[in-house]
Order: sequence, then structure tokens, then C-alpha cells
Amino acid sequence: MDNAILLISCPDRKGIIAKVTNFIYENAGNIEHADQHIDSQTNTFFMRIEWALKDFKIDKDNIAKSFSHIAEEFSMEWKLYFTDKIQRVAIFVSKRLHCLYDLLLRHRAKQFNCEIPLIVSNHLVAKEIADSFNIRYFYFPVTKETKIEQEIKQISLMRDEGIDLIVLARYTQILSPQFVNVFPNRIINIHHSFLPAFVGSKPYHQAYRKGVKIIGATSHYATEELDAGPIIEQDIVRISHRNSLQDLIREGEDLEKVVLSRAVRFHLERKILVYNNKTVIFD
Amino acid sequence: MDNAILLISCPDRKGIIAKVTNFIYENAGNIEHADQHIDSQTNTFFMRIEWALKDFKIDKDNIAKSFSHIAEEFSMEWKLYFTDKIQRVAIFVSKRLHCLYDLLLRHRAKQFNCEIPLIVSNHLVAKEIADSFNIRYFYFPVTKETKIEQEIKQISLMRDEGIDLIVLARYTQILSPQFVNVFPNRIINIHHSFLPAFVGSKPYHQAYRKGVKIIGATSHYATEELDAGPIIEQDIVRISHRNSLQDLIREGEDLEKVVLSRAVRFHLERKILVYNNKTVIFD
Amino acid sequence: MDNAILLISCPDRKGIIAKVTNFIYENAGNIEHADQHIDSQTNTFFMRIEWALKDFKIDKDNIAKSFSHIAEEFSMEWKLYFTDKIQRVAIFVSKRLHCLYDLLLRHRAKQFNCEIPLIVSNHLVAKEIADSFNIRYFYFPVTKETKIEQEIKQISLMRDEGIDLIVLARYTQILSPQFVNVFPNRIINIHHSFLPAFVGSKPYHQAYRKGVKIIGATSHYATEELDAGPIIEQDIVRISHRNSLQDLIREGEDLEKVVLSRAVRFHLERKILVYNNKTVIFD
Amino acid sequence: MDNAILLISCPDRKGIIAKVTNFIYENAGNIEHADQHIDSQTNTFFMRIEWALKDFKIDKDNIAKSFSHIAEEFSMEWKLYFTDKIQRVAIFVSKRLHCLYDLLLRHRAKQFNCEIPLIVSNHLVAKEIADSFNIRYFYFPVTKETKIEQEIKQISLMRDEGIDLIVLARYTQILSPQFVNVFPNRIINIHHSFLPAFVGSKPYHQAYRKGVKIIGATSHYATEELDAGPIIEQDIVRISHRNSLQDLIREGEDLEKVVLSRAVRFHLERKILVYNNKTVIFD
Repeated sequence: MDNAILLISCPDRKGIIAKVTNFIYENAGNIEHADQHIDSQTNTFFMRIEWALKDFKIDKDNIAKSFSHIAEEFSMEWKLYFTDKIQRVAIFVSKRLHCLYDLLLRHRAKQFNCEIPLIVSNHLVAKEIADSFNIRYFYFPVTKETKIEQEIKQISLMRDEGIDLIVLARYTQILSPQFVNVFPNRIINIHHSFLPAFVGSKPYHQAYRKGVKIIGATSHYATEELDAGPIIEQDIVRISHRNSLQDLIREGEDLEKVVLSRAVRFHLERKILVYNNKTVIFD
Repeated sequence: MDNAILLISCPDRKGIIAKVTNFIYENAGNIEHADQHIDSQTNTFFMRIEWALKDFKIDKDNIAKSFSHIAEEFSMEWKLYFTDKIQRVAIFVSKRLHCLYDLLLRHRAKQFNCEIPLIVSNHLVAKEIADSFNIRYFYFPVTKETKIEQEIKQISLMRDEGIDLIVLARYTQILSPQFVNVFPNRIINIHHSFLPAFVGSKPYHQAYRKGVKIIGATSHYATEELDAGPIIEQDIVRISHRNSLQDLIREGEDLEKVVLSRAVRFHLERKILVYNNKTVIFD
Repeated sequence: MDNAILLISCPDRKGIIAKVTNFIYENAGNIEHADQHIDSQTNTFFMRIEWALKDFKIDKDNIAKSFSHIAEEFSMEWKLYFTDKIQRVAIFVSKRLHCLYDLLLRHRAKQFNCEIPLIVSNHLVAKEIADSFNIRYFYFPVTKETKIEQEIKQISLMRDEGIDLIVLARYTQILSPQFVNVFPNRIINIHHSFLPAFVGSKPYHQAYRKGVKIIGATSHYATEELDAGPIIEQDIVRISHRNSLQDLIREGEDLEKVVLSRAVRFHLERKILVYNNKTVIFD
Repeated sequence: MDNAILLISCPDRKGIIAKVTNFIYENAGNIEHADQHIDSQTNTFFMRIEWALKDFKIDKDNIAKSFSHIAEEFSMEWKLYFTDKIQRVAIFVSKRLHCLYDLLLRHRAKQFNCEIPLIVSNHLVAKEIADSFNIRYFYFPVTKETKIEQEIKQISLMRDEGIDLIVLARYTQILSPQFVNVFPNRIINIHHSFLPAFVGSKPYHQAYRKGVKIIGATSHYATEELDAGPIIEQDIVRISHRNSLQDLIREGEDLEKVVLSRAVRFHLERKILVYNNKTVIFD
């Protein structure tokens, strides 16, 4: 599969779709997916368009330049992706391993079109899994004193390895703003509550104490503010007074796996546009 | 609001979106919604596009003719609608009145852009409601012997009144193929089960006997085959052994109202395309 | 139907169920429902038991006294109810009328075993509905200056009318602690968010701004702290970036109706036990 | 943990709960869970009661005999279980391995109180997983000619190994009535549809063709009739026309894992009572 994908956002006005689709049509591209959205509150236009490069008249290397004329005309923010570029994903994990296991099994089952060259952890417990999947394991123990220094090393590692996406699969260290800002909209976190309810630590305990009748999980891009980044996906499960805290954790972990994996898949398939700290998901 | 809506389906090939959006752009139309779908199994392209007619260079009366050239080029099946045409809806009802009441209250709350000039029933129990909403009530008692004859009268009534959509709001008479075929994709039925499970009569009783853990409701277009037409919307609610048959009925009726009203709204907003006995819902 | 219902909570220890069920059995009562729950964190025992009074050897008037010996032995908090006592419900409403309408139609459909003798409002818009259902309407316009004084009149009205339950069906005035404390666990509110997310005013606007992928509704007992009382029921619906704020409100109102009506039914059927600001729902 | 569990069903009449709970109380047992259900249609009483054996005055070996007097008095069907008996589970699997993997990881995470001494398959693909979890693997290739003969060997294996529960984790061979009848209510199957819709093979394909808006998964006890045994658990996920058949399969597999694992847990915890081809789940 050798496709191009354009993700576009710009002020809405007449002719955008016509110009973009003409650009593809006149160069003999075959559109496989096209999805638009207009936010009428902010008068913003969003588009994701994917077309086959077979027979496309413009060389891959020149598409961006050719398209930039249209982009300028409409003051677009835009990104161009190619599906033959295999993204490189790093998974950060601590001691709870269900999400890590789930991601690796989905990867093996070819649900994700990516490489997972490395796993990062502040603990050693996940090393055995990494070994069994033949993935390099980087152990960064973190204390209050060493945190900044370790993060700097982690950033270097990400850069050296050409990592495109970081997945926080129940990673318990809060990343500093310095770290987060290096990877804007490229760090996906799973939070085990229905955000914005139960921000911070031990959300299942919070939910249990509060006596909610439904618990949830939320995947989102990490931003400077804890658990407040753009929400990508959420899901829930009903509970009742009959359920113990252990039940909440067990049922919740099933949610986490599904909600995190959907977010990773949407990201890898270039289906997410972020604006105003919210997401458009072209599913 | 004075918009035009095109619903299109045709074999997929290069240039469709470009041609359609250019047609609108060149004539100074402002696209408010555009949604496409490509069924890769059958290589079929579907599109719903809605644009403002303000400043549009082609007269309303000539849009269809102008567009027909593009339509022919791509062998399109297509329909053109105008949002200022207020559709006329007839509600058919029998003795269970929750869906009728729900539809009328939503209409009053302006959730539906339509008129409801008449209610048809094989019983008299809903007459009081019709009166209180100032809607004419047509009573067609039906026996095995009079069924065909009554249906013929009902068809005449629908035609005389210029009815665009018939909503079967728990109408207990099974419409004959003769009736159904007069109004293709213009009769919406609510069936109180998760179709295709529990076709036919007393689906809550069937569900209760079967011991399912989830019940559902399904809205669909009526076709010759009972409860087998294209599904528009479904929803469900969890139940357990603790729930009596009466509980199933009560919870199910809440589903029916929501599921039927969503279907009516999608239809009125021209968001449904039918193909292969399935629906594309441009929501 | 002439049943007795006991709602019990006490420290857990051996023999509670045996003693309670023996009390009923030895007096020839036939248990129709029995449900227990043990909160192992706090070692608290909860029970709801309902039995037929037909042939029961103790007079209704003496049951409480007879049972009090067992209650004392186990340091129970307990309440005894009789199903032939028809509860009296007052509905408080402002300008959004969907919940009011829904409650009245469910009452008419005999989903609630209660009387609804009066509707209270700080506006006049619901008067017409009250009239059409033959329910007395009490208009209490409220300003910052008159609020306390009006609440005092409302409390008097509730007492004079022997009101057992107050339902806040989208009543926009925040009740003062003074008011709330007169009716502990006897005021049910519907909040149009998935609590504890989006406390306070305009929760749909908050949800829309936040970009959540699921919205919810929560029914709870009113307490001094706004939107923080024991949660009775919650439900949710999925949304996406395609949904406008108006869509959220429309879908949310459907949730509100279902979630509020379930809470009212649970309360009327004496199925709710409150402890630690949480609820046990014996459904 | 050393508890006893009684599962009881019998015609409903006065005194059952009193007698059973007195039996436990008088012998100094501490009830940890008690749940009853009365099916008012068939006037049948169901009970699950679990108590701590610490300080219980009757020896484990004599409890059944002691209780049998009460059981006879009320014509009970009943079973007595002890939580210190670790059940032995055999997993049957074919080529799709997600449910197998899921069960093994949950077992490792101590969600299931059981042993999994062996995996049975008609293919070899799962052998590597079995090895990595140190579980013996039994390969029974099946053809039309060898089916009966292989089943006989499988039954022997189950008996020799003292298998208490067989879990069909996407096992593609249809078990003969002869096989099924040897293990009544001891074979749990996962069917990848919302039963009774889409019985038989390729249910996701059926669902895709039908155009349903929601797909489901169902776990149930295997009986002679294919996919028609007592339903234990069901769950669903919303889909739309945007979803390909591959999407349905991927989302459905997530459902299957959750729905199967809940059923296995309920069974292992002795929370399921079967009657009239339905289940009471004391959750």
C-alpha cells in the first residue's frame, strides 16, 4: 500500500474541497478516503484525504511543494504523510503490565502498522516481557533528584532512535513540561478514569469512594497540564455497589486496553486532528 | 435556512468529489456539510453534500438539470433536496402510545423539521392525544376481511395529503407488500428487539424466555419481508435475571422512543442512503 | 398488594439474616424479595427484605415494636415501610420541561406508585402542562432578595401537603442548605453530566468545550454541597466531533429522562440505602 | 480462604431463607455473601450463600449430610462447594488465539482461581503459546471420519485429568451431543455474535451483510443445540457503515475476550445457576 494522506485545518470558506480534490484528480490520484468536518462555532474547516500514489503524476518528493500553493491560498495548517513510512513507537511502562501486553499482542496480530523498537521503564518488572518479544529494554530508575537528568537521557534516546510516537502504557512518572513539549501531540497517555472526573492518582479508589455507577478510561495526548490534554477516546462500564474496588480495577483494566489501543491505532493511521485542546477523529 | 442537499451513489472512480465540489464552487455555493463513504467490497461511492443556496448562481429549478450532466458521466443514482421544503409525516399507531407521545413532544420541541398533519390508527385510543395536539385522526378498523380495502383507502389518504414519510410508531398491523411497495424507503418502523434477533410478535416475551442479558430496539425501513428492511438505528440496555418481563417492557420502551426518533430525524435531514438492504447514515 | 419492607444497615456479624428471616417466618410472612450486601471495607451489613402481610400474625401497627428487639440486638439503623402507603411527590421545575413531561407520562402509565399532587416552579411556563394533567401549580418567583423567604414558604407547603419526595426536574434554583436539610435523602436531583465531572451550571457547554467523547447524566440525592450528594443512577451516550452543542443537549435530555425516572422509581420502591454519601440500590 | 458455598433452587414457599441461614448461624458460620432470587412466573426460589468455615461446628465432610434434611424438606436441587478446592480447567482452541492468550494472562494475573493443566486443539498453531506458559498441549486433528473417535479420546483425557470445566476459546469444531452431554453446564463457549442473532458460522460476516449498527458477543453453556445453550454474559459495541468487516472482527475480538472471561470467572466462583435454559448470575 502506497498512499498519501493530507491532514488539513483552516478557516472555512468557499472552494477548499474543490481545490484539494482537483489537485488530486488532475494529477491522476485515486481518492480512497475523504472526510471533512466544519466547526461552525469557530468557522474552522478540517479535512483528511487519502489517495493512492499509483499513477500519481507528481513525485512523492514534490507533492508537498506542489500542494503548498493551495495551502497558502487558504491559510492552511497541514501535514502530508505517506503510508509506506513505518512509524517507530516507544512504550513507557511501570509495574502494571496489562496495557503493555495488550499493545504487543495487537502489534503481533498486525493491528498496528508500526515498529516497536524499544520499551522504557522506571522499573525492571517488564524486562522479561520485552525479552520474550525481542524488544530492547531501557531501564531509567527515577528519584526526585534524578528525574530531570533521566528525562534528558530519555529525550536523547527518543531522538537517537527516531521515535515518532511515545505511548504511556500506565507509566507512573509524571512527565515534566520540558519533556512533553518536545513531543507535541506525539505522546499518548491512558488515564484510568472518565476524564475530567478523577484526575491524578488512584482514580479507581476515587471512583469507589465517590460511589459512581459507571467507571471509564480515557486516552489523550499528554500536555503540560496533568490529565488535561486533548481526549482521543473514552469508554465506560457499568458497576454497582456489589462491585469491590478490586472489581473496579479488573473491569477498568479491560477498558484501558481497548481505549489505549484505539487511540494508538487512530494516531498511526493519521486519523487525528487536534485543535483547541480537542480532537477530530476521522474514523 | 435555504440549503440544497445532494445524495449520491455510484461506482467509485477518479474525479467524483472534484467534479461535484467544483460544480458547487464554480456556481458560488458554500458547502456546509460534505461526507463521503466508499464501500470497498462493492467499489461503490456514496456522498452527501449540503450547500447554502444564498448567492448560488443557478436557480433552484435548474439545479437538477445542470447537475444531471455530472450525474450521467459517473452513472450516479442521486437525489436533490431543498431544506425549505417542509416534509409531511403521517404517524401510524395502535394501542401502545409511548412512541407517538414521544414523537409529538419532540416535534413540539422543534427536534423535527416537518409537519405532522395526521395520525392513522386501527384503534380509537390515541384519538384524545391527537385532539390535544390538534392533529387530524383517521380511524381505520382492520379485520382480515377488510385489510386490503382499508390499505387502499390509506394509500389514497397518503397521496391526497402529500405524505412524504410514514412512521409506524408501534403500529400492530403488518402492512401488505402492496402497501409497502408504494412507499419505498419512506416507511420507518420501530421493532422492539435487537434485530435480526426476535423477529415478529412479542419480542420482549421472546427475549425474556431466551434469557438474554441485553435487550434492544431497532428502527428500519419497512420492506416486503417482515422486520427485515434496512436497519437505520439500534440501541440496547443491559438486563439481568432480576428483571421481570414488565421491567423489560418498561426499559425497552425507553429504547424504542430514542431509536425511532433518531431514525426519523436522520430521514428528515436526508442523512440516509440505502443500498444492498443496508444504510449509510451520514451523521 | 399489601407488603412490608424493611431497610436495614448495621455492623456485620453472625446471625443477622437468620434472625430477621426467622422473625418473618415465625409470624407466617411470605418473603417476596430479599437482598443483602456486605461492604467488606467498612464491615457493614445492608438488607432489604419485603414480605406479604397476608396471614402475617403481627398487626401492622405492632410490627415496628416487635422488630425493634432484633434491631437493638444488632445496633441496626432501620426503616419499615408499607406498600399500601401511597407516597406524595412534588415536582420542582423551571423552564426546561422534558423531565417534567416524562415523569407525568410515566406516572400516567403507572410506572410510579405515587401521587403527584403539586408542581412547584420559579417560572410560569409549566403551568399549562400542570393544568392539562390536573395538577395544582405553585408559582414561587425567586430573586436573590426573596430566596430565603420563598424557600420558607415552600417548606411550609411541602409539610402542609405531606410531601414524601421532592423531585428536582431541571429546577434551576440552587436550594439552600437550610432547605436541603429538612428533607434528607428525600430530594432527588438530575444533573446533566457524568458526575463528578462538570459540576455546576451549563455542563453540556463544559463537556463540549472539553471535547469529551461520551456525555452522561446523573441522578442523586441533594445535599448541602452542590451536585455532590449520593449518586443513585448514571447513564451515558457516545458523541463525536460531528456533534454540535445542540446535539449534546438533545441526546443528553434523553439520558436525563431515563436516569431521573429510574431514580424516582428506585426511591418509591424503597430500594435505596444511603451510607457514606453512597447508595446501595437493591435492584 | 476456606469458605463453603451452597447453590439452591426449589419451589418457593415460606421459611426457606430462615431455615438455611439458621442452619449456618446455629453452627457458628459467618455468612459472607447471600443472594436470593424468586422467579415469580414459575414460583421458583434460587439462592447462593457463602460462609466462612472458620469456627464452623460441622466438619466439611459432614456438611452435605447435615444440610440434606433441610434440602429434602423443601425439595431442593442443590450443590455444595468449597472454595479451597481448586478447579481444573481445559481450554479448547483452534487457530484464532486471542481468547486463549487473554485467558492465560488473566490466569497469570490471578483473576481466575483455578488450574489450567492442559490445552486441547485440532491444530498446532497454539502449541508455542502453551509451551511458553508451561501448559501441556494435546493435539487432536479432526476429520469427518475421525471426529467421534477423537471425541472419545478427548472425553477420556478430561476424565483422567479430572477436568472440572472446559472452555471453548474459539474452538471451531462443533462438539457432538454425546460429548456435550458428558459435561452438562461444564462447557463454556464464546460465540462471536449477539445471540440469538447470527447463529452458526461466520457471524461477523453475517452481521456485516445484514448492516446491523451494533455487534455483540455471547458466552453460554454448550448444549446439544448449536449456539442455543443458557446465556451467561453478553456485551456489545457500536459500529457504523464506516467500519469494514475487518473492523468488526477486531472490535468483536475485544468483546469476545471480555465476555468469555466474565463467564469463566462467574463459573469458577460458583455464581451461576441454570434453569429453563436460562441463567441466574449471582454477581
